[in-house]
Formats: sequence, structure tokens, C-alpha cells
Amino acid sequence: MKKYDNLVKNAVGRMVPTEINGEKQVPFQGVGKFIPTGRKHAPRIESCANFPTDGNKLLPNLKEALIKAGLKDGMTISTHHHFRNGDLIANQIFDIAHELGIKNLRWFPSASFPCQEHLIKYLEDGTIHHIEGSMNGALGRFCSQGKMAGLGILRSHGGRYQAVQDGDVKIDIAVIAAPTADAFGNANGVEGSAACGLLGFALADSQYADKVIVVTDNLVPFPCIPWQIHGNLVDYTVLVDQVGIPEKIISGTTRITKSPDRLLIAEMTAQFCDEAGIVKDGFSYQAGAGGTALSIGIYFANILKERGIKARFIRAGSNKYPVQMLEEGLVDYILDGQTFDLEGVRSMRENPGHINTSPFTSYNYHGKGNFSTMVDVAILGATEVDINFNANVVTHSDGYLLHGIGGWQNCLFSKCTILPIPLFRDRIPVIKDEVTTICGPGELIDVIVTERGIAINPRRTDLIEKLKNSSLPIKTIKELKDEAERICGKPAKANLSDEIVAAIKWVDGTIIDVVRKVNE
Amino acid sequence: MKKYDNLVKNAVGRMVPTEINGEKQVPFQGVGKFIPTGRKHAPRIESCANFPTDGNKLLPNLKEALIKAGLKDGMTISTHHHFRNGDLIANQIFDIAHELGIKNLRWFPSASFPCQEHLIKYLEDGTIHHIEGSMNGALGRFCSQGKMAGLGILRSHGGRYQAVQDGDVKIDIAVIAAPTADAFGNANGVEGSAACGLLGFALADSQYADKVIVVTDNLVPFPCIPWQIHGNLVDYTVLVDQVGIPEKIISGTTRITKSPDRLLIAEMTAQFCDEAGIVKDGFSYQAGAGGTALSIGIYFANILKERGIKARFIRAGSNKYPVQMLEEGLVDYILDGQTFDLEGVRSMRENPGHINTSPFTSYNYHGKGNFSTMVDVAILGATEVDINFNANVVTHSDGYLLHGIGGWQNCLFSKCTILPIPLFRDRIPVIKDEVTTICGPGELIDVIVTERGIAINPRRTDLIEKLKNSSLPIKTIKELKDEAERICGKPAKANLSDEIVAAIKWVDGTIIDVVRKVNE
Repeated sequence: MKKYDNLVKNAVGRMVPTEINGEKQVPFQGVGKFIPTGRKHAPRIESCANFPTDGNKLLPNLKEALIKAGLKDGMTISTHHHFRNGDLIANQIFDIAHELGIKNLRWFPSASFPCQEHLIKYLEDGTIHHIEGSMNGALGRFCSQGKMAGLGILRSHGGRYQAVQDGDVKIDIAVIAAPTADAFGNANGVEGSAACGLLGFALADSQYADKVIVVTDNLVPFPCIPWQIHGNLVDYTVLVDQVGIPEKIISGTTRITKSPDRLLIAEMTAQFCDEAGIVKDGFSYQAGAGGTALSIGIYFANILKERGIKARFIRAGSNKYPVQMLEEGLVDYILDGQTFDLEGVRSMRENPGHINTSPFTSYNYHGKGNFSTMVDVAILGATEVDINFNANVVTHSDGYLLHGIGGWQNCLFSKCTILPIPLFRDRIPVIKDEVTTICGPGELIDVIVTERGIAINPRRTDLIEKLKNSSLPIKTIKELKDEAERICGKPAKANLSDEIVAAIKWVDGTIIDVVRKVNE
Repeated sequence: MKKYDNLVKNAVGRMVPTEINGEKQVPFQGVGKFIPTGRKHAPRIESCANFPTDGNKLLPNLKEALIKAGLKDGMTISTHHHFRNGDLIANQIFDIAHELGIKNLRWFPSASFPCQEHLIKYLEDGTIHHIEGSMNGALGRFCSQGKMAGLGILRSHGGRYQAVQDGDVKIDIAVIAAPTADAFGNANGVEGSAACGLLGFALADSQYADKVIVVTDNLVPFPCIPWQIHGNLVDYTVLVDQVGIPEKIISGTTRITKSPDRLLIAEMTAQFCDEAGIVKDGFSYQAGAGGTALSIGIYFANILKERGIKARFIRAGSNKYPVQMLEEGLVDYILDGQTFDLEGVRSMRENPGHINTSPFTSYNYHGKGNFSTMVDVAILGATEVDINFNANVVTHSDGYLLHGIGGWQNCLFSKCTILPIPLFRDRIPVIKDEVTTICGPGELIDVIVTERGIAINPRRTDLIEKLKNSSLPIKTIKELKDEAERICGKPAKANLSDEIVAAIKWVDGTIIDVVRKVNE
């Protein structure tokens, strides 16, 4: 069933199907080329007459809520990943579905994590038909092995909002686990023992799902303030003992790198930004939670301090480093999409300048603009880059699907996108003739920084001009690739079958590439 | 054209048309009886590809923005009334429309004010076909005189949100005047020289209008924080010299009454609430900005202070009195829909417990519940009440349409709705056999407090029981009416024509009553 006959070549030269899981698909047509013509998904008109006048929507447990919400075969069930590897709710949903004998569900998480490996048995027994959403770790491996009944579909955070908003994915039941909520369904992530900062990844779900269930372990009297999720969109609320394991909510990727190579890459990146004129009063940047990105943030902070200037905003994934910058007055605002440590959570609770954002404000490509294009520089990762600057973030060179897209595709729209990456990992070159999976088209990727040199995309003649007298080792991407191959040899291609196991959506809902089964 | 042949009797016995301005209407069917079946209005899917990547949506002036937004004959143009009588933008919109020779516009303000009397000439010359929204003062009189080409339609704040959400009113162009905004369109009401606190009345407009224009006189660098209006929903931004006159933004109705009769009414109302067991730790109330209501708030504050207890929230229209209670720790939260003075604005800017609400959160009847039902007691005004507890807020006894509905209909859903009103005004009894216009059905109105006695709705046997040993002068509403008539005589009926000039919508979009032309 996963042998696709009707593949077409898309605008980055990849062969992609025109139908997936029974639904028509549009192949990637180039950045900004596909212009949607329809109308947004229109949820049903509700009536207060059908809801309790005292605002108390509490049901005894999640099972009852799922039954009341009409759980049945073939439905789409959504969850968010703000608890990351500490989530305790997603597994319970499918335990209940299994217990009720429900089949063929589509699980539509904003991302899945190793703690949800538990669900493999439900993918095997038909409770879950397929996952649409990032598949980190074991679930990704399962998908790569061709074991999932349906095709996986991966979207960026913005692409997920777009898909829900546009009705590409109609959510039947959204289950929103919340660190704090009231019985009406107002909910937030800043208070409670499982505080995760915010709930932005569940925003689309709350707005567009047919039925919305809020599950919390910290029920407060109305009104729950702030209401990051509006109770006016919620059908049922459920009180449980625990929604998340606090220590596992914290992301493990928020330590500054100690690797000398990575520190060098970080330093070179910061210097590049400075020489390119990006680091100036009022500038803005987005840096992920990886060790290298964090180090770059520290270099930026030092430059700001030295010169007595200030950044306007940091787009984050926040943790203690940007929080410290905010509290030292080095930046006016953190525009935060997910907090990565408890300092981020505390800051969002306490600092008026630490702002709760969502994929709607920051990333949705089918809005009247979004924030990603206003960021001066985005510093992102990649598993592979090719000589046309196309990059991969979801598969490794061995072909295994092990990561989600996150906000990566969306951030490519910044004024300058830089990928600081090692030239090789485990003696496998990172720069290739062709990446295993294209997640982002080269035209949006401006600079590759490696420990052995920096390549500027030839399209960015402005940057090339600015750096022409730089002491930095500016090279062509071909030179970097050759250098890696001189050291490590030409990398073997992944051993892949023809069988398609997942598709990668671009930010506009078109298919930019597919993931193929790994021959084991 | 305003002689309607096809009138039907609705659930409160009023004859109402089944079609208005060419659109089908549903007669009022009773509280909670009309259950909608459709889907919400679905705005067009947009694409970032059509918006400037630097986020700068500024156009040189409002005229250019209206032209770019496609202003043409017959369109619906919306504005908000957060500037109240200090608004400077609505008049300009129609000056421009007139200059461009545009005709037959529907003006859809959240309310109109005397400062917009200027627009009568455009109602006369056909630039504006009719107004849908509250018509305070001269515009209401104009409508009452049968001079408006189309039928006026009045909605509550919640009903306006409902109408936009449900697609009953499709807004072509929303013009959102904002005290502060960035060039992307993020906007708020808490900063800037025309600060009005919040912009909640424009929320529906921003979410559902085809084109959204933000006009500001205080342009700040991205990001404008807080973003009470999301730039992601905005098409164009315009910088003008002044959006509002600060001293006229302040509502004139926020002074505590000095009338001995009204103070007596206030005291009796507070005592009633106390004896009914409403005033207790964690209780909540909504009190408008009128002098009597404010005085009641002060009585409540004194009770809380004396007993060392605390209210959970005040639903407001805020001004210095609830703000003082918040800052003295007598209440946890102010859930505020519009600030009525500069103290309200300051508090919303400074106090984390002073919360920005909207007709969506507080009042929309076509949501999954709203806040109005969770309020322990709502203290509201009325121009007339009848012996069945039906009440009128839009017309006077002489038949003139001089007021809007505001949030009044929505607030009737509180757990206890009290109308503290004088027994007569200018020697005209306020309690009648029949009110001129039914704005709220008697079944939702629980208590009438006058200076000469208190009437409890016979439906509220619980309240009657609680007050049975009270020292308060509990009477029947008939007794109150008779007493007024003994003093003032039986009031004359308003001298009205058969001609219908406006319709009053219930919170669910059905027609609860009509307003008829006054014979002059």
C-alpha cells in the first residue's frame, strides 16, 4: 500500500506522491509560489445553552471525557508536546481507546517523544493507524522500518497550525494537558507542579477541534489567569493526579557546549554576524536550544554588553541564558514559543517582557504575515546540507527518521539564516552532494558555518560583499564538502527501499520530500 | 419600505419581521431555545507570500488604506467604540468614502456616540445606508424619526461577536483605531496618548473581517507589547496625528451618585445581596459605570473590608473604584471589558490582576459557555421594566431610541440579576404594564430595587425564601407599579407609528423586539 505509482517531481526535484492516506496533495512549487484560494476551517457554531451555566465542565476522568466527546473509529486525536519527554497523558488516551476497542485513529501530536514508545503496540494492533507529527526516537525508527499502517506526515510547528487552520487536518478530539486550569477550561502552563511555561502548540487545536478536553492536575477557582487556552473553546475538563513529570519536561539539550570544535563554530558564527552588520542596537535573533546555539547567544550577550547596546527581541525556546539577558536589560523582549527549563517558566510567569507566543503569531505561513520574517538572524541546526544549500533535519545519513521539524522550516524565513554545523559527525561528512531528505530549500539558507570554514550562499551577494575582507575562513560549499571528503572519504548513500514511509510538508502544506523505508 | 407585512409574534409576544434589510431573520424563541446548527464564518486563507517580509504594512494615509482594501458600494465597514466620545477615526472613514463617491455602506460600529453626529449627512446623502450597532444620542434620534434608509439593528456586545463569528454580519473592512501599534499591526490600548485600556470590541473584527486596517498615532518598533490585536490578522497599518481625544475617552458616567434616592437604592441593593447570601468570600459581581452601580460597589468594598474577606473577581467596565479594591487586595481580579477612566487604563497596564477580556470570553452566547453565567450578581440599569420583569434599555418612554444595549443582555445571565432603578424619572413611572421595547426577557431578571421597595421575580422562590424575614421593603412588582402611578398618574403611551425603524437582537441572533418611528 505504500508503493506509490503516481509520483511527480516537485520544485526541488524530489519525487512525491499526489495522494497520501487517501487525501490529495500538492507538490512543493517553490518558496512563496503556492497561493491558497480557499477558506479557513469553520468550526461548528456552539451555544451556551448546551453548556453548564455554572461553568463547571468537570468530568470524573479522561475515559468519560473521551466517550462524551464521541471517540470512535477513524477519528483524529491531537495532543501537544509542551511536556516533552515528561508527558503522561498521550499514552493514557490510547490506553483508553484500546480498552474501548477503537481502531484506526490518527494521532496528531505537535511532536512525539521517546516516552510515547508505549504507543508502538497500538500502532501494531491497529488502534492507531498512523502518526502525523514529529516522531523523535523509537517512533521514528518504527516508521522508518515501514511498520506504520499509514504514511507519517511531518510538519513544522507553523505548518501544523496552517494545516489545522486550513482544514487540511480536521481534529475530532483535542486533548490539552495543562499544568493549571479552572473547571471552565481556561488553562495555562506557567503555574502548577508540571509548569511548562506556555501552551501555544495547543492553540490551533483549541480553536479548530470539534471537541476539546482540558486535562489538569492543578485545578484553580475560576478565573485561571493567564488563560493561555480559552475555556470558551473547551468542552470538558478533567482533573488527574499528574499531567507531566517536571524533571523530564526540561529539555536535555540546553547545556552550553564544551566541545572545542563547537565552541569554535559558535565563535565564528557570532563573529560572522557581527562582521555582516547584523549585531547592532535593536537587532533580533532566534537561536535554538542546542549547545552551539546557546554559546552563540552568550557571544551576542557579550557584544551587547561591551558596546552598551540592546537587542529588541530574542525568539526562543527560552532557558536560563536568554532569561538572564532579559533580566540584565540586554534585550527588551523574549518572544517565546516553548520554555526549555524552569528558569524559562519562572521568567514567563514573572517578567512582563517574556512573551507567550504561538505557532499562529510566529510561524503560520497562511496568515497576513508572521514573526519569522522579521528576525534579523536565525541560527539553526541540520543533520545534512547539500551543495545547493538544501538541508535536512529529520533523517540521519543512514536514512532513519529520528527528529521532528520543529520550527526549523519556519525560521528559515529570517533575514539571515545560518546553520552552524560540524563538518562531519562520527566521521560522516555533513555536507553532501544530495541530502537524504530535503526539509528546507537552499534558497532560504544563507550561511553554513563549520569549524573548518564558512560558506555563503551565492544568492547572498550582499553578505559576500560585506565579508570580502574578513579574517574568517570564507569558502565555497563545494570546498567544504571536498575537505570533509578528503578527511572522511565519500560517504555511503543510505540503504533505502523504494517504499515511502513518511512525507515532509513545506510550510504552505505542499510536499517537499518523502522519507523512504530503511533496508535493514 | 419599512412597512413590514410579514410580522410574526415571538416568544415574548412582540411582532417582529422575518426579513430585515434583505436578510432572513429568526424571531426570538425564548431563552436558550434557539440552537444554531451551522458553522462559523470562515475567513479566506491568506499567504505570507502576499505580505511584506519586513513586516512593514504601513500605508501613507487612511484613504490609501481604504482604497487598497477595496472600498466599494454596499460594503460593511466596522469600527470600535473604545474611544467613546473622543473617537476621531470613524468620521474620517466616511468623509473619505463620501469623497470617493461610495454609496450604500453599512456602518457596523460596536457603538456610536454623539461625536459621530457628523455622519448624519452621510446617512442623508446615501453614503451610509444604515447603522448596525448602538445609536447613542443624535444618531438614535435620527433613526427614531424614520430617517435612516435601512433598518437599524442593535445588538449586545456579545451579540455583535456572535453575529460576526456566525457570519450573520460579514465585515468587508474593519478599521481598528489603536492607541499604540507596530507597523505589522500588533496593537494595544494601554499605551499612547489616547490610551483606552483595551481593544476587545475590535477582536471579532480582527478575526473575521476580510480586510483589517489598524490606525494609530503611536507607532512603536516591533513587537508592540501587549498585542491585544494580532498583527497576523492585519492587512494595512496607518499612522495618523491623533486617533482619539483623551479627555473625551473618559466616560462621563463614572461619578458616584449624590442623589439621596439613588444612594438609598444603592444601599438597599447591597443589603439585599448581603441578606441573600451573595456577598461572601470568593464572590463575584458585575456593576456598570453608572452612579448607583458604583455606590453599590463601595458598599460591597466596605462589607469585604469589615469581614476581612475577598471577592474573587469583578466584571467591569473599570474605573478608579474597582481599581482601588484590586490594589487594596479586596478582590483577586478585575475582568475588564472596557476601561472608563485613566485609573482603569493605568491599572490594566500595571496590575497583573487587571485582566483584558473581550466579548468573546465574556459574552458570546455561541461559544462553549461564557463568563457572564459565572458572575454571582449583576447590577444593571434599565429605562423601563414591566410587571413581568421584562426590561428596556434602548428607548425612553417617549419612544426615542437613545441608548445602546452594551453588555446588558449578556449580563442578564448572571446567577442573580438586579436592576436598581428609581420608581419614576421626571415624574414618569419606570415600572409599566408593558415596556416600550423589550431588550431582556423577564425570566432573566431577578430583582428590581427602587427607593420605595424591592420586587423579587416570583420565579426566584429561593430568593423570596431567603429574604422572608428581611427588614427590607419587599413588595410585588404590581405594588411598586401601583405606588408609582398613585404618585405620578398612569403614564401616557409613547406616540409611535407602525413604521419599524430598528430591530433588537437577542444574544443568539434572534429578534426580540423592534423599535418604531416616533410621531413628532
